[in-house]
Amino acid sequence: MIQFKNISSEEPYLIFQDWYQEAVNAGQLRVQAIAISSYNADTELVDSRFVNLKYIDKDRWVFFSNYNGPKAQAFESNQTISALFYWSATDAQIRMRAHIEKIPAEESDAYFANREPEKNALAIASHQSEEIESYEEVVKNYQAALESGDTSKRPEYWGGFQFTPYYIEFWSGDRYRLNKRQVFTKKQGAWKSKFLQP
Amino acid sequence: MIQFKNISSEEPYLIFQDWYQEAVNAGQLRVQAIAISSYNADTELVDSRFVNLKYIDKDRWVFFSNYNGPKAQAFESNQTISALFYWSATDAQIRMRAHIEKIPAEESDAYFANREPEKNALAIASHQSEEIESYEEVVKNYQAALESGDTSKRPEYWGGFQFTPYYIEFWSGDRYRLNKRQVFTKKQGAWKSKFLQP
Repeated sequence: MIQFKNISSEEPYLIFQDWYQEAVNAGQLRVQAIAISSYNADTELVDSRFVNLKYIDKDRWVFFSNYNGPKAQAFESNQTISALFYWSATDAQIRMRAHIEKIPAEESDAYFANREPEKNALAIASHQSEEIESYEEVVKNYQAALESGDTSKRPEYWGGFQFTPYYIEFWSGDRYRLNKRQVFTKKQGAWKSKFLQP
Repeated sequence: MIQFKNISSEEPYLIFQDWYQEAVNAGQLRVQAIAISSYNADTELVDSRFVNLKYIDKDRWVFFSNYNGPKAQAFESNQTISALFYWSATDAQIRMRAHIEKIPAEESDAYFANREPEKNALAIASHQSEEIESYEEVVKNYQAALESGDTSKRPEYWGGFQFTPYYIEFWSGDRYRLNKRQVFTKKQGAWKSKFLQP
């Protein structure tokens, strides 16, 4: 689930909350899963992965990750990303373009301190996306971190990212590909809306 | 559903078919939905959208689209894309990097000739991603195309894209983020495999 904190009351945010609730009501599993796509200018590669969106605070959309992994490197190299929900239970797609950056360190500290020790042990133990001999090694490193004691102190290589969309498309699938598409674009602080052909 | 035609018998293709079948068996809706992410070097934007993967023929993964829309322009500008499945029913993610190009025109012709007239009418009528006054206009244009007669002749601005992955990661969610990750990379015609930390 996604937590809404002081969420913006601008029109695309109201529509987002409606669509989110419809997906939840329709029994969508892992409704918080969002595909974040980045471009790394150094490697010249586009890459995509699903993350768990944790909360939306005003217009900041927040998830947590390893700060040394490939996606953090891509965000450093190019701050403009795309973010994409697809809820199969309602055949609804939400496409966003946004700027991404790290959240303040204190916010990551507070979030980490309140997580389950088991999740924190993994965050501490794992060098995300680095090669490892086997899955058994992953489990071994994790158990060592869990048993080593304090799992409430956030390692500096782990924390939150926030993105703020300036483009939000609401796409709803319909019969014969007569899909409905409404786009909101933010310019000089104001959202404008238009319809697109399917 | 995705159609398998003479699909490659290389290891990542065997795993893919297993995971696909597990998702189907678990009741995954719209199992063919795949996020295609591109980078347009002219606009300097990353973009993502879900499409329906129609078939895999040997090592060619095929979907259909408008050839004039923004994604076609992005593929022209940069042929390396990422392709991403996420099946919430099994908490499984498949991440690919691939080169993309148009399929042969005769293959698009044959595919188009065998589709429902209602889908073809939309393909003919729609200037994908261009602005339009309202959704009612979309429906009006569609009905005009449907009633105007022959919907079996493919317009030149519609056809297939094929991508051929050279990187395939199988990601399986597990408790406490102890996710399993196995990567296959194709080099000089041979796939090599390794495990990544979660």
